[in-house]
Amino acid sequence: MKHGLFVTLEGSEGVGKSTQLRLLHSALASLGYDVLTTREPGGSPGAEDLRQLLLFGKNPLSLRAEILTHFAARADHVDQVITPALSAGQIVICDRFTDSTMAYQGYGRAHGEAAVLDFITGLQNQLGCTPDRTFLLEVPRDVARLRLAARGAPVDRYEQSDESFHARVSAGFRDIARRNTDRIRCVHTDGQSAEEVNSLIVKDILSRVPLRASQE
Amino acid sequence: MKHGLFVTLEGSEGVGKSTQLRLLHSALASLGYDVLTTREPGGSPGAEDLRQLLLFGKNPLSLRAEILTHFAARADHVDQVITPALSAGQIVICDRFTDSTMAYQGYGRAHGEAAVLDFITGLQNQLGCTPDRTFLLEVPRDVARLRLAARGAPVDRYEQSDESFHARVSAGFRDIARRNTDRIRCVHTDGQSAEEVNSLIVKDILSRVPLRASQE
Repeated sequence: MKHGLFVTLEGSEGVGKSTQLRLLHSALASLGYDVLTTREPGGSPGAEDLRQLLLFGKNPLSLRAEILTHFAARADHVDQVITPALSAGQIVICDRFTDSTMAYQGYGRAHGEAAVLDFITGLQNQLGCTPDRTFLLEVPRDVARLRLAARGAPVDRYEQSDESFHARVSAGFRDIARRNTDRIRCVHTDGQSAEEVNSLIVKDILSRVPLRASQE
Repeated sequence: MKHGLFVTLEGSEGVGKSTQLRLLHSALASLGYDVLTTREPGGSPGAEDLRQLLLFGKNPLSLRAEILTHFAARADHVDQVITPALSAGQIVICDRFTDSTMAYQGYGRAHGEAAVLDFITGLQNQLGCTPDRTFLLEVPRDVARLRLAARGAPVDRYEQSDESFHARVSAGFRDIARRNTDRIRCVHTDGQSAEEVNSLIVKDILSRVPLRASQE
C-alpha cells in the first residue's frame, strides 16, 4: 500500500510553527511534491467544531474530558483527512499533534502526574497514527511573548494561562523529545532567519521521501 | 470512603426510561434517600455542549471520533457530577451510560465489528466507574415506535436511523446483558403498568442500599 510521509510541527505558542508550515508547503510544492498542510485541534469540519469547544467553550471540561475531546477531534482528523492523504501518497504536515496533548494537558495542566501521562499514552496507542518525523521548534519564552503580543489575535484558553503553566509545557516538550530521539528533532528558531530554519527542515524531509519523477 | 449506589437505565428509544427515571426518583426520595437523577450524553454543562454536537451537529464525525466524543462527555459527567455524588453517599440514577455506546456505536453503527467493540472496551477500562446495577428495559419495537410517534419530540441523529440499525442496537443490548448477568437485569415493560415496573426496580435497588436512619 502506498504511504506518504506524516510530519508534525510542535512547540509552544509563538515559536514560529505557522510561518514554517507556510514556507514548507511552498518549498515542497515547488519541488513537485503533493503536500497537505493542516492543524490541530481541528483540521476536519467535525474536529473544528470540537476545537471551538476546547478553545473558547464557556463550560470548562474536567481534565480527562478535555484530553478525550482532543483525541475525539484527532480521531476525526486522522480518519477523514490524514489517513486518506497518506494513502494517496501525500506529504502531510500538521501544526500540532499528540505531543501537544502530552505537553499541554499532561505536563502543563497535570504537572506531569503519572496517571495522566499514562491515560494519554493509552489513548495514543488506541488511536495509532504516529508521525514519521516531528520538528520541535523552540525559542526563549520572552521572544515568544513578544511575537504573541505583536500578533494581536484573539487569546484562547491556553494562551491565557500563567507563566508557570507555559514553563511546564516547554519543559514537557523537551522531555518528550528526549524520550523520542528517533522521531523528534529539536530546532532552535531564535538567532536564524525563518528561511534558514525552513531550509534545514526541508533537507531533513527530503532525506525521507523518494525523489520525484521530474527530478530523477 | 463513603460510597452511594450507581444505577443505570438502558434500552432503545421508547422503552420507558424517562418515565421510570421520574418514578424512581419520587419513590426513593419519599423513602428518605438522597437521589440524583441524570442522563447521557450530557448531565454536566460541558457534556451537554458535547451532546449538542453528537445529536444535532451538522458535520458527521468518524465512528472513532463519535465514540471518543461520547466518552469525553461521559468523563466530564463522571468527574464533575457522578463521582462527587457517589462520594456524598447519594443514589445516582442515570438514563443511559457506557452500555448505550456499546449498543449504538459498537453493535448499531459498526455491526459488532470486533475492533470497534475492543476500542470501546479499552475506553471503558481507562474511564473506570462501572454501574453497581443496570436495568435494561425492553418492549417490542412496534410498541416503542408508537410511543416515539406520540411523543413528537425533535428527532435526533439516532432516532432517524433505519429499522435494521434499531434491530442491531436491540440485539446488541441483549448480548451485553448476557455477558454481564451479575450487573444487568432485563425488564420487559410491555404488558405491565409503569407503576408495576417501578415497584420491581425499587425493590431491587432497596436490596442493595442500607436502610435509612428513619426506617431503622
